[in-house]
Amino acid sequence: MDKIVIIGMGLIGGSLGLALKAANIRNVEIVGVDMDRDAVNTAKRKGAVGATERMPSVAVKGAQLVLVATPIMAFPEIFQEIAPHLSEGAIVSDVGSTKEQVMKWAEMYLPPHVNFVGGHPMAGKEVAGISGADAALFQQTLYCIVPSQNTSKSSVEVIIGLVSAIGAIPYFVSADEHDVLVGGISHLPLMLSAALMAMVGRNPSWDEMSKLASSGFRDTSRLASSDPSLSLGISLTNQQSMLHWLDEYLAVLREYRKLLAEDVNMFAEELSKARDVRDHWLTTLSQGDRDRLFKDLPSASEQMMEMFLGGRMSQLMRQQEDKLREMEKKHR
Amino acid sequence: MDKIVIIGMGLIGGSLGLALKAANIRNVEIVGVDMDRDAVNTAKRKGAVGATERMPSVAVKGAQLVLVATPIMAFPEIFQEIAPHLSEGAIVSDVGSTKEQVMKWAEMYLPPHVNFVGGHPMAGKEVAGISGADAALFQQTLYCIVPSQNTSKSSVEVIIGLVSAIGAIPYFVSADEHDVLVGGISHLPLMLSAALMAMVGRNPSWDEMSKLASSGFRDTSRLASSDPSLSLGISLTNQQSMLHWLDEYLAVLREYRKLLAEDVNMFAEELSKARDVRDHWLTTLSQGDRDRLFKDLPSASEQMMEMFLGGRMSQLMRQQEDKLREMEKKHR
Repeated sequence: MDKIVIIGMGLIGGSLGLALKAANIRNVEIVGVDMDRDAVNTAKRKGAVGATERMPSVAVKGAQLVLVATPIMAFPEIFQEIAPHLSEGAIVSDVGSTKEQVMKWAEMYLPPHVNFVGGHPMAGKEVAGISGADAALFQQTLYCIVPSQNTSKSSVEVIIGLVSAIGAIPYFVSADEHDVLVGGISHLPLMLSAALMAMVGRNPSWDEMSKLASSGFRDTSRLASSDPSLSLGISLTNQQSMLHWLDEYLAVLREYRKLLAEDVNMFAEELSKARDVRDHWLTTLSQGDRDRLFKDLPSASEQMMEMFLGGRMSQLMRQQEDKLREMEKKHR
Repeated sequence: MDKIVIIGMGLIGGSLGLALKAANIRNVEIVGVDMDRDAVNTAKRKGAVGATERMPSVAVKGAQLVLVATPIMAFPEIFQEIAPHLSEGAIVSDVGSTKEQVMKWAEMYLPPHVNFVGGHPMAGKEVAGISGADAALFQQTLYCIVPSQNTSKSSVEVIIGLVSAIGAIPYFVSADEHDVLVGGISHLPLMLSAALMAMVGRNPSWDEMSKLASSGFRDTSRLASSDPSLSLGISLTNQQSMLHWLDEYLAVLREYRKLLAEDVNMFAEELSKARDVRDHWLTTLSQGDRDRLFKDLPSASEQMMEMFLGGRMSQLMRQQEDKLREMEKKHR
């Protein structure tokens, strides 16, 4: 019996459990850990985990794979707490929104006989917490993998296998590049949504505006509802990247302001160009994902199966590839 | 047989047709008009309209109600074209995103023997055009009604009846107030989304970022995909309000930038406050809509039915009220 421990039964931790369960891997026990008794009980009732544990130090004993899915600012404490109890060769990974600081903490606090591989699934949802957990959350989304310098190749392959098993697409990236890229497409949008809510919230007309606000406003402001512990975590660990992107954005917005004041037609032309960028993105997104999936499910994954789960995942992988080939046919 | 003419078979025009059809009003003919032969044919095939016509001037002959749902910049031409052919007492309304300029055009170009009532359904969708048309688009959404100075009370009541028939909630507002409010919750978000796409689009990292961008980015940038004719229309007719909101927003964003640079914890605190504003909005939204619906379906609507459709809509209204009462019960 192999043991996977998920520490933190929030949206991502719970969804990981459900997705792993849906992958139907035999002879693997998934143990869920959370200080919040309700969260961990709900996770068990939903079937996200087979067993529960309150103390990370107890849970990780004998585990082959430990996934840390708590708010990012809890990582240092958790790493220190589990460090003395991790088995030789155990693999530790995380799902934190930033990677540079996390890699430093892992190096600082985890013992040399374990393998740390940073991770970040590019998936989210408006509903936070275990109540929003969803087995399909990671389907067709990218999953960033950031190996640490002294990680074994086989550990990375285990993570590739995990990512593929939950339906996501492995995406290798360095920690610093990750934080810059994610700053632009995730942390900046969060700031923009929050600033929009802050602005309307302090306006005396908000009482009326709030009645008129419809689906467009709801979508634009969605990220403002992000979990405060997440917002704090990214602000503390990705400040420079966020400042960089805020400056870039402010520059564009000032340009827009000038153009709108001086030449309305040219301004509308700019809006139209921005639309083209987005439409092109949506098009390549729907075509590109499948191509990337094929490219990134390489022999490395095959190898990892043998190493980690004794070939028990091979069937699953084959099923997934068959499914993709079918999709492929349908789209032709 | 009463005749309702919808000029413009886009998302809103098509959805209006479908919603009116779903309301199942007997003895009413809905005629769809569009220069685009494909759009008008699709509308007919979808059942959004019973008959089609290419020329607005021909279509409006003998019509009791004319709804103009083309891009806003086409309004002056359409008003002038239909003016000589409108029946005595005909009601003309529109679905344009701004109201002050539209009310001026109506006064300028429409004859005094017709009644103009400005309208603006607060509903939208990512998919533009007739292909996105949806009978349920207006359900539980507010529908702004802006009567012109010399509109008869009965004409306004007809529009209330129309709004109620398609499942929307009448919301009375003056033209200038409308344009300010909508500038903040609709046109500003559009500019913010577009500026986000413009920014990433010109960044050399967009190629990689575009792969990582997920549902959060997709939602924040959604409005950037708005129809260019819509963007042009609002920019040309609501420039001052848009400039006002851009300035308000820039001020908040500059505050954010300063705080993020100087005090990350305080910055995260601000993000958390913005979250509270949004959560409160979402809560009142789900409770408030039903209350408002009950309050705003008054005897005025009952009266209009008698006047316009000889009581034929009474049954429909009663059905709707029954449905609401059932919902009410379920939610208790």
